[in-house]
Amino acid sequence: MQKRTADYGITVGEMPKGAMNKISDVPGVRVGHCTVDTESHKTGVTVVLPGENFIFSHKLPAAVYVLNGYGKSLGLMQVEELGSLETPIFLTNTLNVGLVHDAAVGIMLAEGARRGIEIASINPLVFECNDAYLNDIGERAVTAAHVAQAMETAEVDFREGDVGAGKGMSCHQLKGGIGSASRVFTLDQNEYTLGVLVLSNHGALHDLTIGGKAIGKMIETQRQAELREDKGSIILVYATDAPLTSRQLRRVIKRGAVGLARLGSFIGESSGDVMFGFSTGYSVSGADDILQISMVNEKKLDTIFRAAAECAEEAVLNSMICAERVVGYRGRMRESLVKYLALLGDS
Amino acid sequence: MQKRTADYGITVGEMPKGAMNKISDVPGVRVGHCTVDTESHKTGVTVVLPGENFIFSHKLPAAVYVLNGYGKSLGLMQVEELGSLETPIFLTNTLNVGLVHDAAVGIMLAEGARRGIEIASINPLVFECNDAYLNDIGERAVTAAHVAQAMETAEVDFREGDVGAGKGMSCHQLKGGIGSASRVFTLDQNEYTLGVLVLSNHGALHDLTIGGKAIGKMIETQRQAELREDKGSIILVYATDAPLTSRQLRRVIKRGAVGLARLGSFIGESSGDVMFGFSTGYSVSGADDILQISMVNEKKLDTIFRAAAECAEEAVLNSMICAERVVGYRGRMRESLVKYLALLGDS
Amino acid sequence: MQKRTADYGITVGEMPKGAMNKISDVPGVRVGHCTVDTESHKTGVTVVLPGENFIFSHKLPAAVYVLNGYGKSLGLMQVEELGSLETPIFLTNTLNVGLVHDAAVGIMLAEGARRGIEIASINPLVFECNDAYLNDIGERAVTAAHVAQAMETAEVDFREGDVGAGKGMSCHQLKGGIGSASRVFTLDQNEYTLGVLVLSNHGALHDLTIGGKAIGKMIETQRQAELREDKGSIILVYATDAPLTSRQLRRVIKRGAVGLARLGSFIGESSGDVMFGFSTGYSVSGADDILQISMVNEKKLDTIFRAAAECAEEAVLNSMICAERVVGYRGRMRESLVKYLALLGDS
Amino acid sequence: MQKRTADYGITVGEMPKGAMNKISDVPGVRVGHCTVDTESHKTGVTVVLPGENFIFSHKLPAAVYVLNGYGKSLGLMQVEELGSLETPIFLTNTLNVGLVHDAAVGIMLAEGARRGIEIASINPLVFECNDAYLNDIGERAVTAAHVAQAMETAEVDFREGDVGAGKGMSCHQLKGGIGSASRVFTLDQNEYTLGVLVLSNHGALHDLTIGGKAIGKMIETQRQAELREDKGSIILVYATDAPLTSRQLRRVIKRGAVGLARLGSFIGESSGDVMFGFSTGYSVSGADDILQISMVNEKKLDTIFRAAAECAEEAVLNSMICAERVVGYRGRMRESLVKYLALLGDS
Repeated sequence: MQKRTADYGITVGEMPKGAMNKISDVPGVRVGHCTVDTESHKTGVTVVLPGENFIFSHKLPAAVYVLNGYGKSLGLMQVEELGSLETPIFLTNTLNVGLVHDAAVGIMLAEGARRGIEIASINPLVFECNDAYLNDIGERAVTAAHVAQAMETAEVDFREGDVGAGKGMSCHQLKGGIGSASRVFTLDQNEYTLGVLVLSNHGALHDLTIGGKAIGKMIETQRQAELREDKGSIILVYATDAPLTSRQLRRVIKRGAVGLARLGSFIGESSGDVMFGFSTGYSVSGADDILQISMVNEKKLDTIFRAAAECAEEAVLNSMICAERVVGYRGRMRESLVKYLALLGDS
Repeated sequence: MQKRTADYGITVGEMPKGAMNKISDVPGVRVGHCTVDTESHKTGVTVVLPGENFIFSHKLPAAVYVLNGYGKSLGLMQVEELGSLETPIFLTNTLNVGLVHDAAVGIMLAEGARRGIEIASINPLVFECNDAYLNDIGERAVTAAHVAQAMETAEVDFREGDVGAGKGMSCHQLKGGIGSASRVFTLDQNEYTLGVLVLSNHGALHDLTIGGKAIGKMIETQRQAELREDKGSIILVYATDAPLTSRQLRRVIKRGAVGLARLGSFIGESSGDVMFGFSTGYSVSGADDILQISMVNEKKLDTIFRAAAECAEEAVLNSMICAERVVGYRGRMRESLVKYLALLGDS
Repeated sequence: MQKRTADYGITVGEMPKGAMNKISDVPGVRVGHCTVDTESHKTGVTVVLPGENFIFSHKLPAAVYVLNGYGKSLGLMQVEELGSLETPIFLTNTLNVGLVHDAAVGIMLAEGARRGIEIASINPLVFECNDAYLNDIGERAVTAAHVAQAMETAEVDFREGDVGAGKGMSCHQLKGGIGSASRVFTLDQNEYTLGVLVLSNHGALHDLTIGGKAIGKMIETQRQAELREDKGSIILVYATDAPLTSRQLRRVIKRGAVGLARLGSFIGESSGDVMFGFSTGYSVSGADDILQISMVNEKKLDTIFRAAAECAEEAVLNSMICAERVVGYRGRMRESLVKYLALLGDS
Repeated sequence: MQKRTADYGITVGEMPKGAMNKISDVPGVRVGHCTVDTESHKTGVTVVLPGENFIFSHKLPAAVYVLNGYGKSLGLMQVEELGSLETPIFLTNTLNVGLVHDAAVGIMLAEGARRGIEIASINPLVFECNDAYLNDIGERAVTAAHVAQAMETAEVDFREGDVGAGKGMSCHQLKGGIGSASRVFTLDQNEYTLGVLVLSNHGALHDLTIGGKAIGKMIETQRQAELREDKGSIILVYATDAPLTSRQLRRVIKRGAVGLARLGSFIGESSGDVMFGFSTGYSVSGADDILQISMVNEKKLDTIFRAAAECAEEAVLNSMICAERVVGYRGRMRESLVKYLALLGDS
């Protein structure tokens, strides 16, 4: 079992957490990884499966929010128009998005065929960050076989850190990658969950702040300073079982930026920062002309907004704390945040 | 009774029309006018009442689509965020929007007080077109009393043409103003209505096309050509009793542009062209944390899109055909389209 | 030489046309096709090259407008954020977008390497329509070799109709595909051009209207009516040498919808209708911190708006008129519009 | 002279500040207040004058970013379409926006007349927060005379805290209001400034965090806890003399959210959080068809993004630290943050 943020005595926010404190606390959600780990390739693919049903026949309400659009994520346009999700969610490196998109099309067509559904149009969601520092990105090492393997190995209690799409990512110039967190809340006497999975690859070391302490500046004094750039990017994939409309989901996921800012980022220029969210609370597929659905009362969104901010902050920390030091392409290295956590006691 | 488009043998589209072929075919919707008609003032206010309930306590799903944002309509931001309507909809001239907004606040606060509801925040929707050609707009002739009168005289079978906010408007350099139309369609064996009210003030005479015939160019040969400018603007207010979400409403009202294009407009530059829509199919106000609502199956929107295009085209024609010739500020004149309709038989 | 709209005596609009009446009237713009034409495959790829320079090092101002987002076009997010174009523009079928994206990445990386530029991040623009009626789309017949060939054969005086990405497309239930048109206008005594290339695949036969005449309904009476659906989609790629900012380009390309409406479309529901535009008037790449650029005075956009509407209408007509009858997948057939043009004389 | 954030030993960010550390460090920018201060009225109007020229004839590039649209600010639509500013910027309370809009129209028309310019259409920008806690907002106490007075008394070295529109505002359940800050940076060897003026009225006491210390929770232990709600809203008006396009300005002002998050806000639900920005670097008014302008190289925006985040954080702190305790409507009270600043030394 991986040691996570709370295991180091770091508390993020005040809301109660889900059982695993992961996106998969939302019933039905699973996460799969396939890691490509050679001397020059540190990359991979991560997939979020939104539920047990065949998602193409059981579309879910969804939304996207582009915090900074300097990125190459694919499939957002249709989500913005229709407010729905019809495939799993794929994460990989910047130059592999086309290949992963094509692999996703293949997987969905094959699965459709197996179920007797002829699919002539499908909108895979493929998100990316740029792992070119640790990974020889130009060789586009992720293949369709890797995508299939990530799908097949999806599980509820998945790993975080330098795995899957996160293998080669950097966060605040330390090692980043995959992280997750969740929060629970009550609506009409029932408990609901909001969870997030992040692919972190943003931020300057100089700016890293944990619990209000400028740990990034402390680390800088311990080693030769690198160029201070808030480059890279971050993807946040939110899931909830609360019945939110696409419009409401967009309001919720927008609060992910709060978590990033609390860790010191100012949302740098050359960064593709994208939030995506879906709800398993109802499906928008159906045979009737008029569907009966639920929606959370707008007045009750405040708690879910708070949950979104807390989840983002803790998930990014988990992505760093669960990641081990990686040496990759051209001998470049990213150290694990864990090495420096003791500094938090020194301020 | 006013003679309308169909009374002149002009057919728009193919879908069945509502009983009155007006926005008020949507149950509960009423329209009120107050016209300011002096030698130099040709202006007024028109109000669309969305239903019998006190709208602030019974908010409705709503959406806005800005086709061309070169305008001064007020209150759109909150509709975009919350997807809901909490006041009647007001239409007036460009320089009176602030005063009408203030009057609307006063009316809503007073009505709230009468019902024991303390209102500390309210978002009136005030739309405008610029009637400066026929109206001495700088004097801002519309007052709070006019707004109150429009509210009080709202009725189901309202007048069109050069009334209310439409008194001084021009359309394709002829007389424009208020027009309306509606279409009906079936969902799960029940009949629903989509209706629209327009405030037309856009287009060059040169471009006016009716039923594919370039009547604008025919009229030009009959009189001294004016400057050919597609200036001015148009407001389209849609209502339906079909249960659409805010996102779906936005898709529907966007098709209003099709109606404008078919009449020859190319959506000129200096024009504030705004579509607004609301549904009476359900309310988003409620005491529970989770509301049970309906929504039209996305696959069934196609017919409603067609209805939106047809309604827009016919409503603009009604705004012109119901309008009489007006002579206003500085002796400027706008002729009625009716004078030239015979040309349609000559092509 | 192909016979085009004007060769059949059909006039669209009133503005003067460019020398070829194609997008390539904009200096530097070229278009390449690679057609895949087997018994069951009617598909391909078309590429628009924006200029003579290596576009990645010489980025151009650009904009996107999503009229209907029910589509899978890739790369729009970055254009919306940065307002710039850094690759050629690729068009293909819906299920091939991932593969073409990957091929485009490969081409750009190789070209970069040839020039000594290491590219670690690139945003190809890949647009699509769904040719599943005439093409066995599930087999994804377009390969990287086809993309390369389209690039290599790009020319100024390119073919229209059933070629390249247009091979399997349908428009108003007749044969559609690639079409183009251009208009010229004067700013400060200099002549500028706006051109468009369309990939047409939208509309119901029933609704087709040419020059105001309901030719679609006439054709219906001549043959067994099909299901009347305004499905499919359309892509419009605009180019101009007038120096427009990204915001201004977006205003211009939005007027493409006018051309579609005039031909009878009401912008149906299940359709991915996307406009894209770029200007060759200046580059946003440069070594200085502050760049000196030009921009068209906002007051002068009106004529360019009119040009955008006219170009769209004529380009769609060209896409139909230049296309021959195609029989494809499962023996399905799309007739050429040319067969029915004589009906226009009968009304 | 008012004591400000730095005077209490609190450091925000690391970039160099402008001479006054106010928005008016941008040459030409001035700020005027008119405060309404009676027993039950704690409100007013604040105006930002963008330069020495008559802004209607000398329009400036501008942008808006709506962080949370649950608000009533007026005039945003045209800014989004045209990317320009044509009036001063007005701030007031929620229910007075209509009246202030009307007053602004009057002032602009009169000023136009004085200069021989007939204005038939004008787009005032009126922003608001809700001061209903301390102010009897239903009486709409701000009049046209107050607006005129704010215009006339505009100055470079203006007051902050509980003045003008800020008189009745609350921030993190302490006293908020008007605050400002600025940062300087270098482009091509020349120094430029970014400044901001905020009207702060958001946040829960519980969440207030300064320099990473949870001062809000410390204050709570000292007094009876109130309901913890992140209600209210905030307006941020940015100015810069760096030549940014409208699109670039939007990217910059979006980073204001970072400053809010660092002070503990999670951007609560019922809040109208709006950023606005303009550049004095060039004008978009001109007689030529094609204007010659400058724009900052996109690669150089990173520093301006950092400046935007730092300015927002410090300006909100200034709005609280410069504000004195206010007792208002129905005897309600907001304490000054200054009373509690010593707690920052106790953690």
